[in-house]
Amino acid sequence: MARLSLQDVRDLAQRVLRRHGFSEPYVQAIAETMVAGERDECASHGIYRLLGCIATLKAGKVSADAEPQVVDQAPSVVRVDAGGGFAQVPFRAGLPLLVKKARQQGIAILAINNCVHFSALWAEMEALTAEGLVALACTPSHAWVAPAGGRKPVFGTNPIAFGWPRPDGLPFIFDFATSAVARGEIELHRRAGKAIPEGWGIDAEGRPTTCAEEALNGAMLTFGGHKGSALAAMVELLAGPLIGDMTSAESIAFDAGTKSAPFGGELIIAIDPGRILGPDADQHLARAEALFEAIQGQGARLPSQRRYEARERTQRDGVEIPDALYAELKALLD
Amino acid sequence: MARLSLQDVRDLAQRVLRRHGFSEPYVQAIAETMVAGERDECASHGIYRLLGCIATLKAGKVSADAEPQVVDQAPSVVRVDAGGGFAQVPFRAGLPLLVKKARQQGIAILAINNCVHFSALWAEMEALTAEGLVALACTPSHAWVAPAGGRKPVFGTNPIAFGWPRPDGLPFIFDFATSAVARGEIELHRRAGKAIPEGWGIDAEGRPTTCAEEALNGAMLTFGGHKGSALAAMVELLAGPLIGDMTSAESIAFDAGTKSAPFGGELIIAIDPGRILGPDADQHLARAEALFEAIQGQGARLPSQRRYEARERTQRDGVEIPDALYAELKALLD
Repeated sequence: MARLSLQDVRDLAQRVLRRHGFSEPYVQAIAETMVAGERDECASHGIYRLLGCIATLKAGKVSADAEPQVVDQAPSVVRVDAGGGFAQVPFRAGLPLLVKKARQQGIAILAINNCVHFSALWAEMEALTAEGLVALACTPSHAWVAPAGGRKPVFGTNPIAFGWPRPDGLPFIFDFATSAVARGEIELHRRAGKAIPEGWGIDAEGRPTTCAEEALNGAMLTFGGHKGSALAAMVELLAGPLIGDMTSAESIAFDAGTKSAPFGGELIIAIDPGRILGPDADQHLARAEALFEAIQGQGARLPSQRRYEARERTQRDGVEIPDALYAELKALLD
Repeated sequence: MARLSLQDVRDLAQRVLRRHGFSEPYVQAIAETMVAGERDECASHGIYRLLGCIATLKAGKVSADAEPQVVDQAPSVVRVDAGGGFAQVPFRAGLPLLVKKARQQGIAILAINNCVHFSALWAEMEALTAEGLVALACTPSHAWVAPAGGRKPVFGTNPIAFGWPRPDGLPFIFDFATSAVARGEIELHRRAGKAIPEGWGIDAEGRPTTCAEEALNGAMLTFGGHKGSALAAMVELLAGPLIGDMTSAESIAFDAGTKSAPFGGELIIAIDPGRILGPDADQHLARAEALFEAIQGQGARLPSQRRYEARERTQRDGVEIPDALYAELKALLD
């Protein structure tokens, strides 16, 4: 294992992205997503993703310097045409108008179109909770996941994220794939030559499998049976046709076998508690703390708790990267 | 089994509700929810719920004639103070302004406060998809469900519902509890003296149980492990503190052991695809049909499919009610 500080992670990511021609807004924003992934010990969304970023660029499936176009679509709707760049930059471009609209109207939508995604939504939720807003986000990906009762991929891993601002500390945030696990987890198992648990995937004939390679070539499964499958369909609809963008099936067809990152849309909803509650907002947000206390008080975890504990640790001690991965990443500088 | 037509169900429900003093808007609206439950063969939300309605009324935990107060809170926010009545009537009261705001702004919230709930959200989703809107809804209930990793009830069964209008047919709708099953299912097992499957609940000491009675006195479990638990927490926050209303723990404390229906809030979000997509809306909504075809084409079901098949059957053949339940319901007329 190679031990790196978070600043080392940032420097490495920025150097690789610059070396391959990404413009400075992308260099900055993508590197910060990877730092956040490593910092919170979400390896599947960490610096490992640089490999996919560069492969996607080389396949001609992402723009290295697209300038996002922000459109004031309706009183409560912002659209951003990403022009084929990674999602982090159009998100940053649309954020100020989304925040303004949520504060004025009570609730607002940010629809990002034509972006390439590697789905680290929790970082976006933190940007919104930092403004005192409640936030929801989702995005399709590539059709890798079979619907409950089926055997052919239709859905992406289709993450759903939610953020809630807390008055005296880090926000309540969850961000999970509606597949049983993130695809990156199965890829990491394949790289490590490890079996996957049952329930993660089926082979190309629809049979349960514990082989990562077979699941990657067959279909992943949703979490929670038909309920997870229903949520995955909702993500397809909300961040696909509703905002005039691709479903996961359309994204993987567009990909044409290059194994690039998913292309399509992302939907973010922001709600201002103050606009609903008026002067009572602080009192009601404080009541939410009793809910968190009832969960933690019985020894259960909040969804974000593990990430925040990791964050304290990695900011102090840095992170460990497998040697083989570190060598592959450094080779991207050649 | 007693066989009743849907009109018989409606007549029985209306007579019972009138007999116990509900005002005519409640008689009409509550009876329609129960007809919808029986019609779609969701017995746990069908006429069986009359028992709970009347018990809640006798316990003094619901108003039989409250007039809902609609408040135009913000450009994209409607609030309705239900004044302690069942949710169906305040939903109907707030619906026209919610629809108007969604069409003007692109997205809007309806927050219902101080209502008593028996959580048949899919009927509300149908009212919104009939207007061409995409809809989301959720509501807490009573603290019956333990968080993942815990053993004491904190969450309600906390349903989430979603509706998507389809151009040539019945809408795509799901409506499911974030608990492993609806509490009504466990109650029906208890009434029938049947064991419940593992994974539905734990006893008061936190041990897995297949005894319906023990689970009802211990804690129910969420679906999908920590992901379902995270969604249950989101429902608490969105339809509790965010709209200035009770969490499930506060609702059960307010209940004070009377075993009445849950008291608190409900959140509904409506989105107008036309306001996001402009003249391209129809074309993109048609693309959603390809997603449904990809699911159904491989023999998997859409979430609403079973209900719609039941609906065809029961509209033709009527429904069957267990004799003991039918006798109990008729006794409410005495």
